[in-house]
Parts: sequence; C-alpha cells; structure tokens
Amino acid sequence: MNLLLISIGLGLLAIVYGVITSSQVLGASPGNARMQEIAAAIQEGAQAYLNRQYTTIAIVGVVVAAVVAFALGSVPAIGFIAGAVLSGVAGYIGMNISVRANVRTAEAASTSLQAGLTLAFRAGAITGMLVAGLALLAIAVFFYVLVGPMGMSPSDRVVIDGLVGLAFGASLISIFARLGGGIFTKAADVGADLVGKVEAGIPEDDPRNPAVIADNVGDNVGDCAGMAADLFETYVVTVGATMVLTALLLTQLGDLLLPLMALPLLIGGACIVTSILGTYFVRLGGGTNVMGAMYKGFIVTAVTSIPLIWIVTQFALGSVGMDMNTVINPDQGMVEFTGRSLFYCALLGLVITGLIIWITEYYTGTKFRPVRSIAKASETGHGTNVIQGLAISLESTALPTLVIAAGIVIAYQLAGLMGIAYAATAMLALAGMVVALDAYGPVTDNAGGIAEMAGLDDSVREKTDLLDAVGNTTKAVTKGYAIGSAGLGALVLFAAYTTDLTVFFPAFRDGDLANGEVSFSLENPYVIVGLFLGALLPYLFGAMGMTAVGRAAGDVVIDVRDQFRENPGIMAGTSKPDYARTVDLVTKAAIKEMIIPSLLPVLTPIVVYFVITAIAGQDNGFAALGALLLGVIVGGLFVALSMTAGGGAWDNAKKYIEDGNHGGKGSEAHKAAVTGDTVGDPYKDTAGPAVNPMIKITNIVALLLLATLAHGAA
Amino acid sequence: MNLLLISIGLGLLAIVYGVITSSQVLGASPGNARMQEIAAAIQEGAQAYLNRQYTTIAIVGVVVAAVVAFALGSVPAIGFIAGAVLSGVAGYIGMNISVRANVRTAEAASTSLQAGLTLAFRAGAITGMLVAGLALLAIAVFFYVLVGPMGMSPSDRVVIDGLVGLAFGASLISIFARLGGGIFTKAADVGADLVGKVEAGIPEDDPRNPAVIADNVGDNVGDCAGMAADLFETYVVTVGATMVLTALLLTQLGDLLLPLMALPLLIGGACIVTSILGTYFVRLGGGTNVMGAMYKGFIVTAVTSIPLIWIVTQFALGSVGMDMNTVINPDQGMVEFTGRSLFYCALLGLVITGLIIWITEYYTGTKFRPVRSIAKASETGHGTNVIQGLAISLESTALPTLVIAAGIVIAYQLAGLMGIAYAATAMLALAGMVVALDAYGPVTDNAGGIAEMAGLDDSVREKTDLLDAVGNTTKAVTKGYAIGSAGLGALVLFAAYTTDLTVFFPAFRDGDLANGEVSFSLENPYVIVGLFLGALLPYLFGAMGMTAVGRAAGDVVIDVRDQFRENPGIMAGTSKPDYARTVDLVTKAAIKEMIIPSLLPVLTPIVVYFVITAIAGQDNGFAALGALLLGVIVGGLFVALSMTAGGGAWDNAKKYIEDGNHGGKGSEAHKAAVTGDTVGDPYKDTAGPAVNPMIKITNIVALLLLATLAHGAA
Repeated sequence: MNLLLISIGLGLLAIVYGVITSSQVLGASPGNARMQEIAAAIQEGAQAYLNRQYTTIAIVGVVVAAVVAFALGSVPAIGFIAGAVLSGVAGYIGMNISVRANVRTAEAASTSLQAGLTLAFRAGAITGMLVAGLALLAIAVFFYVLVGPMGMSPSDRVVIDGLVGLAFGASLISIFARLGGGIFTKAADVGADLVGKVEAGIPEDDPRNPAVIADNVGDNVGDCAGMAADLFETYVVTVGATMVLTALLLTQLGDLLLPLMALPLLIGGACIVTSILGTYFVRLGGGTNVMGAMYKGFIVTAVTSIPLIWIVTQFALGSVGMDMNTVINPDQGMVEFTGRSLFYCALLGLVITGLIIWITEYYTGTKFRPVRSIAKASETGHGTNVIQGLAISLESTALPTLVIAAGIVIAYQLAGLMGIAYAATAMLALAGMVVALDAYGPVTDNAGGIAEMAGLDDSVREKTDLLDAVGNTTKAVTKGYAIGSAGLGALVLFAAYTTDLTVFFPAFRDGDLANGEVSFSLENPYVIVGLFLGALLPYLFGAMGMTAVGRAAGDVVIDVRDQFRENPGIMAGTSKPDYARTVDLVTKAAIKEMIIPSLLPVLTPIVVYFVITAIAGQDNGFAALGALLLGVIVGGLFVALSMTAGGGAWDNAKKYIEDGNHGGKGSEAHKAAVTGDTVGDPYKDTAGPAVNPMIKITNIVALLLLATLAHGAA
Repeated sequence: MNLLLISIGLGLLAIVYGVITSSQVLGASPGNARMQEIAAAIQEGAQAYLNRQYTTIAIVGVVVAAVVAFALGSVPAIGFIAGAVLSGVAGYIGMNISVRANVRTAEAASTSLQAGLTLAFRAGAITGMLVAGLALLAIAVFFYVLVGPMGMSPSDRVVIDGLVGLAFGASLISIFARLGGGIFTKAADVGADLVGKVEAGIPEDDPRNPAVIADNVGDNVGDCAGMAADLFETYVVTVGATMVLTALLLTQLGDLLLPLMALPLLIGGACIVTSILGTYFVRLGGGTNVMGAMYKGFIVTAVTSIPLIWIVTQFALGSVGMDMNTVINPDQGMVEFTGRSLFYCALLGLVITGLIIWITEYYTGTKFRPVRSIAKASETGHGTNVIQGLAISLESTALPTLVIAAGIVIAYQLAGLMGIAYAATAMLALAGMVVALDAYGPVTDNAGGIAEMAGLDDSVREKTDLLDAVGNTTKAVTKGYAIGSAGLGALVLFAAYTTDLTVFFPAFRDGDLANGEVSFSLENPYVIVGLFLGALLPYLFGAMGMTAVGRAAGDVVIDVRDQFRENPGIMAGTSKPDYARTVDLVTKAAIKEMIIPSLLPVLTPIVVYFVITAIAGQDNGFAALGALLLGVIVGGLFVALSMTAGGGAWDNAKKYIEDGNHGGKGSEAHKAAVTGDTVGDPYKDTAGPAVNPMIKITNIVALLLLATLAHGAA
C-alpha cells in the first residue's frame, strides 16, 4: 500500500510543479494592448472549440459509459469516466496555459532569446507534467481505492476490468481530440495559406486574413490539447497494460503481486522527479542552439532516471524481502526474470527513446541528408519535391522499425513478455519531458503569429522564428516516440488479449487444436484475414483524415473569399475581418468530420469478430480478432512513422530554403517547398498522429468485447 | 501424361496465335519515311536498353544459377535457367512487336479509330498470349520431361525443387525487369517533362526535346517488357506453387496426384483458348467507347472460361475414374474437397478478377468520384491536388482488401488451402487477356508520340489520344490484378513453406511446443519481429525506387540542358538533338539503380533467418522467417495497391482537366494536375508494380533456403 501512496505522492508533485510554474508564466507581462487583444481572440476561439469538442465527446462518452456499465458493471464504467475526464482535463488546462503563454513569450522574446525560451518551455513543461502527473494519478488512485479502501485483491477481475475501462476512457477521448484537433488545425492552416498566401498574396499571419486567428487557434487545439490527450492515453494504456499483464500472468506470486503491479507506477513517479529536474537544464548557455538546450534537459532527465529506476525497483522488491537478483519464476512456462533484468529492460526503454529521438532528428532536421535532399529536389519543381518527400517518408520507417524489432528481441531475451512491458513503461515514464518539448511548439508558433499581427519589431519575429524552428523536429519526435512505444505496447496488449481469452474461455485454449483450440498461427487463414483487415484500418482512417482536411480547408477558402468580397475594407486595412466566423466554421467542420473515422476502430473489431464467428465458428472469430489487433499495429506503425517523419521533413525543407538556400524565399524552389509543406500538413498533424490512439482503441475494444462475451456466457 | 500433353498443346496454340497475329501486325503499313525514322530510333533505343539489361541480369543470373546448382543440384538449376530465359524471351518478343506496332497504329489511326484499335490491341494480344503461353509451356514441358521421359514421381523432391527453381528464375528476372524498366521509363518521362514542358516551354513529345525518344523507349521497356516479365513471373509462381502444394500436401493420393497436379495447367490451357476467342470481340461497334470494347473482350473470355474450366476439371478427374462429386479426403487433418468445390473456387477466382477490374476502374476512371475529386482539388493548387491524390491512394486499398479477404474465407470454406490455390490459379489463367489489355497501352502511347513528332494531322493525334485514354486504367488494372493474386498466392507460398519445413525438419514440427516446435503463433515475439521486418521491405524498396527515379531524372535534366546549350540549333529546329546520348544515359542510370533494391528481397530472408537463429535458436529463426514472408505481403499489398491506383488516378485527373474541365489545358488547375501526375509516375510505374515480384522473391528464397539447409543438414 505504501508503494501506491508513494506513487500518488509523486504524481501530486507534478501537479504542484504545474501550479507553481503556472503562476510564474501567468505572472509575466502579457505585452501591449494590441497583443492582448489578439491573444484574447485566440483564447476565445480555442475555448469555444474545446467546449464544443468536449460537449460532443461527452455525448458519445455518456452512451459508451452506459454500455460499459451495462456490459461490465459499475467499476469499469467509473474507470472509463475517470480516464475520459482526466484526459480532457490535461488537454484543457494545457491549452489554457498555452493560449496565455503565447503572448507572454512574444513579449519576453523582445528582451532576449533566453527569456522567450524560458517562458515558452515552462508553458510546455506545465502541459508535460500535467499529462504525466494526471495519467499517473488516474491509475494509481483508482488502483489504490480498489485494492485499499475497497479491499479487493490486485488480481480481482473487477480491478483488471476497471483498469481496462480507465484505458478505454483515455483512448476514446484521445482519438476524438487528436483527430478533431488535427482536422481543425490543418484545415485552418491549409485554408489560410491557400487563400491568403496563394490567392491574395498576403504573408502568413497577416491580420487581414480572416482565417489567421483560426490558424493560431488550431496550433493550440491540435498540437497542444490534442497531443496532450494522445500522450495521456499512451501513458495510461501502456502502464495500465503492464499492470494488467502482471495480474493476468503472474497469478502464483501471492504477496509479490502487489509490489510488481505497483512498480510501473513507481517508475512513472521516479521519472516525474527527473523530468522536473530536467526542465531546469533547458538553457542556451550563451549561444542560439535551441535544440541543444532541449537536449540538455532531456539528457539530464534520462541519465538521472537510471539510478532512480534502480532504486524504486529495489525498494519495491525489498518490500517483500527480495533483492534484485531473486529469480521470479512465473507459471505457464514463461521466461524467468529478476529485478535486475526488469531494470535492464527499463534501461532498454530509455535507450529506445533516445534512439528514436535521434533518428527523428536525422530525418526532420535541416542539417542532414533527408531534409536537404527534399530542398534540393525543390529546384526542379513541385513534382520532384513531392516525390523526394514521399521517398523520405517511406525510408524514414526503416531505422525506427529496426530499433523496435531489436528492442522486442532484447527485452524478450532478458525477461520475456514482462521485459517488453517494462521497456514500454520506461519509454512512457519520460512522457513528462517529451511532452514538455512538444507543447513548447505551439506556444512559440503562436508567439510568432502574435508578433507579426501586432506589428512588433522584426527582431522579435526573428527570435520567435529561431525558437519555432526546432518545433517541427520536436513535434515529429513526440509522434515517433508515441507510435514507437505502441510498437512495443501492442505486444503487451496482444498478450493481455490472449491471456484474457485463456481466463474467460479456457475451453478454447486447452492446447488441443483438433478440439476447437484458438489458433493464432499464421497457418490459419482466418489469422491472415485478420492481419489484412487490421492493416487496412490505418489506410482507411488516414484516407478519411486527409479527405476531411481537404474538405474543411475548402470551406475555409470559400468563407475567406466571401469575407473579402462582402467587405472590401478588409484588404484595404480599414476594417477588421470577422475572425470568429471562420473559427466557428472550422469548429463545426472539425467536429462533424471527426465522428465517423473515430468510430471505425471502435466498431471494426466487433464486426470482424461476429462475422468470422458466424462463418467459421467462435474459435476462428477469436483468432481473426487477435490477428486484427496485430494487423493494426503492423500496418499502423508504418503509416504513422512515414506520415509524421515525412511531414516534418517537408516542413523543414521549406524552412531550410527560407534560410536562404536554393534561392531562398520567393524562388521557384521555395514555391515547390511550400507545396510539399502543404502536403505534409495533414500527413503529420492529422492522419499520422491519430493512428496511435486508433491502434490502442482497437486493442482495448477487443479486451472489453472478450469480457462482455464472458459475462454473457456466464 | 495425356493431360500434360494437352496442356502443352494449348500452350503451343498461344504461340501459334502470336506468330499469325505478328505477321498481320507487321504486314500493316509502317507509314511515311519520317514516321519510320522516328520508330527506328525508338526501336534502336529499346533494343539497346534490353540488351544491356539482360546482359547485366545474365551476369547475376549465372552466379545465382551456380549457387542453386551447388546447393540443390542440376534440375533446380536447369529450372532456374529455363524460367529466367523464357521470362526474358516473353518480354523481348513482346517489346519487339510493340516497337513495330506503334508506328503502324499511328498510320492505321489515320484511316479510322477502329483500325487503330485493332492494330494496337492485336499487338498487345501477342504479348499477352506469349506471356501466358510461354509461362504455361515452361511449367508443363519442364514437369512433363521430369515425370515422363525421366520417369520421376510427381511428388519426387527433385520435381518440387525444380518447380521452385523455375519460379525463382522467373521472379529474379521479373524484379530486375520491372524495376529497371520502371526506373528507365519514369526517369525519362519525368526528366523530359521537367526540362521540356516546364523549363523550355515546349509541348510533350516535341521532337526538339532530346529526351523524347528516351521517353518513348521507356514506355516499351517499362510498360511492355517489364510488365510482361512481371506477369510471366506471377503466372509461373502461382501455378507452380499450386502444383508444389498439391505434391506436398496430398501425399496419400496415389494415382490421383498426377491429374491433380496437371489440373492447374489444364485450367491455364483452357483459358488460353478463351483468351484468344475474347480478342476477336474487342470491337467498337460504331461508337468511340474504347474501354467498352476492351470489356467486351474480357467478358467473353471470362464467361466462356466457366464451362471450359468445368470440362477440364471433369476430364482430369475422369482420367482416374472420379467424378466432380467424389470426395477427396487429404491427409493431415485438411479440409476435404471435391472436383465441384475446386471448380467453384476457380469461379471465385474469375469473380475476384472481375471485381478488382471494376474497383480499379472506379478509382482510376475519369467518370467517377475519386479522379474527379482530385481534379476538383487541383483548382486550389498543387498542394491540395497532392493531398487529395494521397487520400485516394490510401482509400483505394480498402475494397480490394475486402475482396481478397472475402476470397480467402470463401475459398477456404469451400476447399481449404487447395481452394485458395485454385482461386489464385484461375485468376492467373486469365493473364493472356489481361496482359493484352495492358500491353496495348504503350503501343498507343507511342503512336501518339510518333504522330506528334512526325507532324501528322491533328485528327490522328485525337484518335490516338482516345485510344490512349483508357491506357491508364488498363495499366492500373493489371497491377491491381497482379498484386491481388499475390494476396491469395502468399497463403499458398506460406503453406508451401510450412509444409516444406515439416518435410525437411520434422523434429521442429512434432506438435510439441515445449520441445522446440516452431511456433508461427502471433503469441511468439519472433513472429511479431518477422512481421515488422517483412512489412518494412516494401517501404524501403519503395523509397529506393522513388529515389532512383528522382536521381536518374535529374541526370536527364542536366543532359538535356547541356544539349540545348551546346547546340542552339536544336531549339531553333535547324539541327537534331542527340537522342541516342540521352537514351544511353538513362540506360546506364536505370541498370545501375536497379541492382541494390533488387537484391534486398533476395538477401533479407537469409539475414533474418541467420540472425534470429543465432539469438534465439533455429526454431525461432524458422518462425521469424515465416512471419517475414507474411509481413511482406501484408505490408506490400497496401503499398502496391495504393501506389498503382493512386498514380493512375492522378494521371487521369490530369487528362480529365485536359478534356476541358476545371479550366482545361494551361489553367492553374492543369498545372497542379501536372504536378500530381509527376508524383504519381514513379508511384504507379516504378515502386508500386515492382512490389509484386518482390513479395514472390522473398517467399521463393525462403523455400530455397529451407531446401539448402536440409541438404546441408542431411
């Protein structure tokens, strides 16, 4: 019990950090009246969008909660609600800080680059710590209440179903928020660019463009709130799945079970401490190397996490009188492990995180071959820019896949399935720091927009541009990291599925293939069918997301054209455009467009199970459903990696040209690079990142389906 | 034995058709002196390319043949050589007809549309019948010699290895030809467009463009010779794998084995008859509906195939005294089947082919939503054109995947693995007709170019454009069909792999998991690793192909610029450009660029097997290798489908605008559509189609590796 209380305390530490840092950020000067006016418009638009988005999600959520309560009882339903609400809270608060920090960053950047960096990064760190802290608290408090005050056994079915319910709540919010926010931000961005830059010939962030506020709102609701919900979900699902797997697999451990289920939470708590520590090391040290400053913070966090993870592991095992070398010999012919081997797997998770960051920077940074090759290809036109960008996006999947494959092999060799779970958990434990790096992006992006619109001195815009330049890379990093962890997490979720199957339907898992045993072998054609259908999901989902952005962006174009025509004073600069009208339009479009694609991964597993069961029996229904889960990850990993890295590379190729290479701004190469950037937008900010929650939802729905079928059968 | 001789006779019929039709085509008027001169330049370039390509492949081939001979003995090596040589012959003759039919089609089109269609389609049909006929003869004669004159048992290991060797030879040629030809054609096309249309402002096919002959050569070496090698390979591998699977699985059938192994050949022979019949129904019937004329031919072939397949099935079973309802009860707990159920599966294969053609036309035809949505998106610029094109390319995977998944389920329900094999065989049996539709494309494309360059009357170009308009769809159809059959064929190949494993390494397949049994279950992490690595291959391969095109196209641009600078008379029209120099440059670039990507699928299975075996034991090495094979198909199916359909849609969106929609030629929308078309070029003609042979090679290398390891172990 003490272990859980410690985890809860560490989770609260993140909240305390958030509160203190918020007061620091909000205490900074919000600039002049014009800046505040613009910021207020962004705040208002973002607030209006999130209110409407969460209202819509709430309606879906209440229905789903009722279904969960009916099918599985009150505890999973309460878990579902807790996961959903806290995910919403993390995004909501993060965005509220972000829309207030943007104007303050613009103001701070007018004094020095370091001042701007400090303010923007702190704002990001608040979101980061809230995501990690609230996610940790959600699981730890929920688990504590069930096994403490309510006196349940850690391996009680209600506890397991409750944790799955919690994860489902977080996932469902996440897919809506990622997709809705992603459609909003890119529809506004693409629409504003098309009609502003291309048709009207006015620069980006020009206050005469009616879509300019919507564009800035989009940065917050997509890149901040949407991303926060995504990482909250990834955290809850990964740590939750590790605990569920522990409870399901290690049924013979007795007293050791509670400490082993608490250990992922302790690792999460330890890394909150090191993440907070790391934030204080994000400093320029005199130069202008913003990415270097970020790395300093990340490295401090990662390195100090190593001893702390060792200490908490030792502490957890010590609580039941074991040391790091005591062999834990689980039942069911599983691989043996020790505290030491789990520690090595956690270390592996940190290494994988570092490698994925490094690979992502290689593919999206302006210093390396990939981005430069796209910039060079822009010289020969739009077509070759896009061809090279697509080639890079395909290529960028290779190294992360090799890292993940090697990670699976090494973790499994060290400690079996538990090892893979611990590697994934350690990856996610760093979420506080990784989200901080990412949430910093929209703040600086907005700050630049505000500086432009408020007509601040060019030197301010230069500084915000410098701060913003690393934003493409850090955004790509977070997405690569989230989807990479999903690559490991998928195995954990699949193991939870197969183990659950054994628990609920032992007759299908008696080892006697001739007698209806479920065969997950690739030799079973229904497994192949499941893999195909699973791999199809991210493609179809991506197509829907891309089309939605195109459609909504078209609406923006029409609205802006109408405003220009109805009110000629806008272009003359004598009257203000109706920003709110465009924001409202994008809001409605994004909400409308997010529903159908989000339901795809919820309904597909159910349909596939029932259709295959009807045709080929329940054993093959279970087999096809299991294969579907892995098909989604096999297909989704590549779609998501290629889209997020490719989009980042296109964006930075444009930036690289704007820095004066290949003819610089206004050249033919630059025009081609703008096309590439536009193509990359929905790739990297709408379709690609939403694949991650989509993978999780599919898996969690399958787990809930199993539990529901078991209730029905009993 | 008679069954085999009949198959051989039907294969010869295709050759006879080819010879007769060739004399008809070559007997037509080759036009005026200027036309003949241009055609001669194309012929010469194509000849030079193919000579160099086949010389290079021959060097690789001799090395590989020596390795096969050393590892597996002389019969598989002879099979390898036969497969390789005949694949080369099919492509070589097809291309030779194509480069002679082009100019004659231009001439014929000056009299009437029907005359042009007849000539171009006959030229395509020659290639089609040669592909189907030579593929059928390759297997039938080889098999006949082994089991007839050489007196081997049909299930003799040497026979099986020989058939696998034959497939390997065809596949190895195919991947080189597809990729080399694909790089050639798109490097020349993109390069010619970039420097001609974009920089110099001269129209497509303008004789002043030094790359114009290379562009026309590319149509022949890529779309004709490359495609022919691809389909030859698909035919040999699919029919061969069905025979191998029959021999491996149905070991207890005695006398029934030979007729069952001959039946796929008879089905292939029967469909040659119906394909020849179908060619005579490709007629306009007064109107200008070229696609409708094509469909008439295809439908006649498909419908008349139904009774013929019934008859040959009845005949084959009757040869050992069985009827269509006699239950064949194979060993090893397999699904029972009858002649009738195999017939239904073949019928299913025909239905799948029809559905894939219909779906592909929907996604690439100018009459339907997908192409029109891309055309519409072109109005708002390059970026939105590409976004919508990518969305369509992602979406286009959905229906074919559902058709293939349904096909697997239905075929398996009807007749188990044999059912799936027969569905795939029937699909390929139609290859003669499908290839005819496709090989028609480059002929008309070239005819238009020759009409343009020779300064023929505009009415001729209008007619060749009308003929060419369906080319994008028919090209996309062939690729969708080839990759769709691979979706079914993969299961057959994987079954061959697992069965082979049982034969060679029975200790690993004793059903005792605790004792080193190979587990292909998704619960085995090495299976997941194999799936990931397999799915990576098409991505990496696609990236290499796209990059190669970009690089080679850049070389073309530089060469053309140099020619313009060195010889100002070219643009003035007073002196002729050095066409041969550009052809030679693209030839060298394509040959150089095709080597590394082609070796990727050859070497990866070997590396993965040995690395995983070293880390986790031979059982997991076999498991990871098996999963790799399925990972390649799961990943490759989507990459190939999306690239080929997406590319076709982009191309036709441009054509749709050129027909006068959305502003027509020269409008901003048209410029955006040209960008989309350029992006789609390497997608649909280089990277996408080469994925099909890549999937097969990976599988065949695995089979050969197993056989080699078994020889080594024995």
